[in-house]
Amino acid sequence: MRRSLAAAAALLLFASPLSAAPARERVDLLVRNGTVITMDPVRRVIAGGAVAVRGGAIVAVGPEAEIAAGYRARQTLDAGGGLMLPGLVNAHGHAPMSLFRGVADDQRLMDWLQKFIFPAEAKNVTAAFVRAGTRLAALEMIRSGTTTFADMYYFEDEVARATKEAGLRGVLGETLIEFPAPDNKTMPEALAYTEAFLKRWQGDPLIVPAVAPHSVYLAKPETLRAARALADRFGAPLLIHVSETMDEQAQVQREHGKTPVRHLADLGFLRKGVVMAHGVWLSAADRTIARQAEAGVVHCPQSNMKLASGAAPVKEMLAERMRLGLGTDGAASNNDLDMFEEMLTAALLAKQTSNDPTVAPAAAVLEMATLGGARALGLEDRIGSLEPGKRADLIVVGFDEARAWPVHDPVSHLVYTAKGADVRHSVIEGRIVMRDRKVLTLDASRVRREAAAFDAGVRASVGR
Amino acid sequence: MRRSLAAAAALLLFASPLSAAPARERVDLLVRNGTVITMDPVRRVIAGGAVAVRGGAIVAVGPEAEIAAGYRARQTLDAGGGLMLPGLVNAHGHAPMSLFRGVADDQRLMDWLQKFIFPAEAKNVTAAFVRAGTRLAALEMIRSGTTTFADMYYFEDEVARATKEAGLRGVLGETLIEFPAPDNKTMPEALAYTEAFLKRWQGDPLIVPAVAPHSVYLAKPETLRAARALADRFGAPLLIHVSETMDEQAQVQREHGKTPVRHLADLGFLRKGVVMAHGVWLSAADRTIARQAEAGVVHCPQSNMKLASGAAPVKEMLAERMRLGLGTDGAASNNDLDMFEEMLTAALLAKQTSNDPTVAPAAAVLEMATLGGARALGLEDRIGSLEPGKRADLIVVGFDEARAWPVHDPVSHLVYTAKGADVRHSVIEGRIVMRDRKVLTLDASRVRREAAAFDAGVRASVGR
Repeated sequence: MRRSLAAAAALLLFASPLSAAPARERVDLLVRNGTVITMDPVRRVIAGGAVAVRGGAIVAVGPEAEIAAGYRARQTLDAGGGLMLPGLVNAHGHAPMSLFRGVADDQRLMDWLQKFIFPAEAKNVTAAFVRAGTRLAALEMIRSGTTTFADMYYFEDEVARATKEAGLRGVLGETLIEFPAPDNKTMPEALAYTEAFLKRWQGDPLIVPAVAPHSVYLAKPETLRAARALADRFGAPLLIHVSETMDEQAQVQREHGKTPVRHLADLGFLRKGVVMAHGVWLSAADRTIARQAEAGVVHCPQSNMKLASGAAPVKEMLAERMRLGLGTDGAASNNDLDMFEEMLTAALLAKQTSNDPTVAPAAAVLEMATLGGARALGLEDRIGSLEPGKRADLIVVGFDEARAWPVHDPVSHLVYTAKGADVRHSVIEGRIVMRDRKVLTLDASRVRREAAAFDAGVRASVGR
Repeated sequence: MRRSLAAAAALLLFASPLSAAPARERVDLLVRNGTVITMDPVRRVIAGGAVAVRGGAIVAVGPEAEIAAGYRARQTLDAGGGLMLPGLVNAHGHAPMSLFRGVADDQRLMDWLQKFIFPAEAKNVTAAFVRAGTRLAALEMIRSGTTTFADMYYFEDEVARATKEAGLRGVLGETLIEFPAPDNKTMPEALAYTEAFLKRWQGDPLIVPAVAPHSVYLAKPETLRAARALADRFGAPLLIHVSETMDEQAQVQREHGKTPVRHLADLGFLRKGVVMAHGVWLSAADRTIARQAEAGVVHCPQSNMKLASGAAPVKEMLAERMRLGLGTDGAASNNDLDMFEEMLTAALLAKQTSNDPTVAPAAAVLEMATLGGARALGLEDRIGSLEPGKRADLIVVGFDEARAWPVHDPVSHLVYTAKGADVRHSVIEGRIVMRDRKVLTLDASRVRREAAAFDAGVRASVGR
C-alpha cells in the first residue's frame, strides 16, 4: 500500500515538475529506498522511508513519498532496500589499543594489565603510535557501523585529530591516572593537558572533549574533584571506569569504606554526562544513586566475559531505565571493535545470567547501542535516533549475505543476525564516510602500513 | 628465512624443469602461500606452508618449498598470505530451520517450541521447504567456513541431496520423534524411512547417514533401542539431544528415576559415534559415563544462552578431554550458522561462568570447532585436521578487514577476531567450493528466490 502510494507520488512529481518542484525545500542529502528504524520516542519503523539532511543535521524523516514531495536533494544515497538506523554508539573504549589486539589473551586481569598491557604501553605508546592506532580503530569502527565512540587514552590530542580526519564523532578524554603516563608524567601536567585539550576542541562539530579520570582506584579524591571542576567549566562529559571487577570493589571498600559509586557521589562527582564504564558490580543502592544523578553506565559484555570480570546487572538496569549504553572496550580485551557482535553478546549474556530468555529483548539491546549510548554520554539531544533536529549520523545495513534471508523482523535481524560486515553506507554529521563499503575518509592500505610499523616493537615488548 | 628458502627452491625448479619435474608427484590441487594451522597431534603451525591434495584426500602438508619440490599440481589455490586451517565442523543443527530465522525471539523455551516452532513446522515443512532451507543454510555455512555439519530434521533425504549438491559434508539423520512429524506420521514409518536412508547414502563420499532419535524425553526406550540397533547394522553415528534444559532433567528424572545419560547408558545406547547435543546439565557422573563410552558432546553456546537453557560445563569437559565439539543449533535459536561467532561465544561464556579467564583458551576453542567436532562425531580418522590421509576439507581465512591488523597470534586471531566473512576460499573433499568468496556450487540468487517463496507462509503460521 505504502509502496504504491510512493510510486504514485513519484509519478506525479515527474509528471508535473513545474508545479511540484518549486515547493520543495533544498537539502544536502537524501537517504532513500529502505526501512527506517528511527529509534524515536514511539520507535517508529518506516518501510519505504527516507531521511533528509541539511548542514549536518536531520531535517525530515518519513515515508519516501512525503520526503520526496517536500525536499530536493543535492546528493542521494540509495539504501538498496536495506535498513537505515542511527549510527551505533560505542560508548567505552581505548581506540589506539587496536595495535595491542591479541598480544595477551586468556590471562587473568591483573597479569594481563601488569605483565602485558602496562609494560607494552610504557615501551610503545608515543604520539605516532596513538595516531596510527586511532586511524586503524577508526577504519574498523566505520566499517562495522559505529558513528560515535567514547575514548580514554593518552596523547588524546592525536586521537582527536585522527578522529576528526576520519570523519567520526568522538567523545574523547585524556586519561588521568596516578602514575607516570606515556605522555604526562605528573597529575598537574595531565590536568593542564586536559584543560588545553578542552579549550582546543570545544565547539568542534565532531569532537566532544571530555575529562577522563581512570577510576576510583587509580585517581585520588583530589584528582576526581579537580576533574569534575574542570569538566564543569567547559560543560564537558566525564569518562571513568567504575566497578569493573570484584578486586576493585574490595580495594575501594578497604580504602574508602564504601562502594566506588558511593565514593563518587560523596565527592560530588556524579551528574549527567558522567559516563561510568563497565558497572559490573553495581549494587541496587549504587544504581539508585547513579540514576538519580543522571549518570550513565556503559555495559562492555565481551571485555567483561573475556577477562572474567563478572556480568553487569543488565536486567535490572533495563528495568530501572538507567542511562545504559554499550561499549567494546579496547581491542586488547575484546579483540575487535564490532558493535553488532557486542549487541548480540549483550542480549545473550543477559538472558544467560538472569536465566530468562525474555530479558534484554532485541529492541532493548538495539536501544543500548544507539539512543541508550547517547543517553549514557549525555548527548541524547544530538545523537542516538533519526529525528529532525538531531545530527545526521546514520548507517545502512544491507541484506547481501545468505544469513540475511529471510528477515521476518528487522530489529531482531539487527541484533541476532546482522554483522558489522553488513553495513553498506555510513553517514556522520551529514557526510558520507562510507559508500558501498568503501571508506571515503581513510586510505586503508596506508592505515595498514602505518599500523604495521609498530608490530615488531609491540611483540618485543611482550616477549614474543 | 623460510620465505627465502622457498623462493630459492622455486627458482631452482623453474631453472631446471627437465631434471626437477620428473621427480615430482602429480596431485590435483595445491593450496599455497599462507600459514597452515594443521591441528595435527603436535599442533604444528607452518608459516609459508602448503597443502597437496589428490583424489579428495590430503597427500602432504609442509613448508611450501618442500611441497613444491615434491608435488606438481593440476590446480593451485593461492591463500594470499592468509591462514589455512581445517574446515569448521558444525556438529549440531537443523539446517532447514534457516527459513524460521527470527520468527520468534526472546521467548521462553517452551513458548518458543509450543507456540511458534512446532506449529510453524506443522504448517510449513514440506520436502520443498526442506530443500530450500537446506540450500540457504548450505550457502551461509560455506560462506562462513563450515565444511562439515551435523543435522537432524525431517525429509532428511532432501537435506542429503541438497548437501551433496552444495559440495558440503554432512552427518545427517531423520529425526525420530514420538509425535506425527511433517513427513513420517508413525515411529515404524520413521524407522523404515531411516533404514532406507542409511541404505541409500552409505558409502557416499560426502554424506554420512546417521540415526537421530530426538531426545530421551521425545523417544521411548524401545525407539532408542531400535535406533541403536539400526545404527549398528550400518556402522552409523547416532545424533540425539541430551540434557539441554533443567526441565528435561526433571522430566527424565521423574519418568525414569535417573539422568538422561544414565538412562541412555542403561539402555545400551552409548558408544563411539553417539553425538549428544547440548549437554548443558551433564553431571560429573554423566560425563564419566559418556567419556568411557567414547560418546561425544556438542556445545551450543549461542542457542543455550538465547533460550536461557544454562551453560554447559565446558571447563570440566575440556579438562576431562571429552570428545567435545561445537554447534550452532538451528537458525531459529541462534540466529545464524556462523561457527566463528560460536567459537568466540564458547570462549567468552566458559570464562564468564567459571570466573576464570584462563579457561577455554583460544587453542582449545579452535580445537572444539575442528578436531573436537570430528571426535564428537566419531570421524576423527577422516576430518578435523590437516594431515596426510585425511579428507581434504580446508578453509583459507584472509586478512582484508581492518580488524585483522595486526595479527600477533594466528590462533587467537581465529577465535577472538576473525569472522565468517573473512573466509576467502573453501575446499571440501578436495573440491574448491568457494573461491574469493564466490560459492561455486550454489547460485545465490536462485537460493534466495527459492527461500523467499516460503516467507509469507511462515509469517502467517506464527501470526505475523
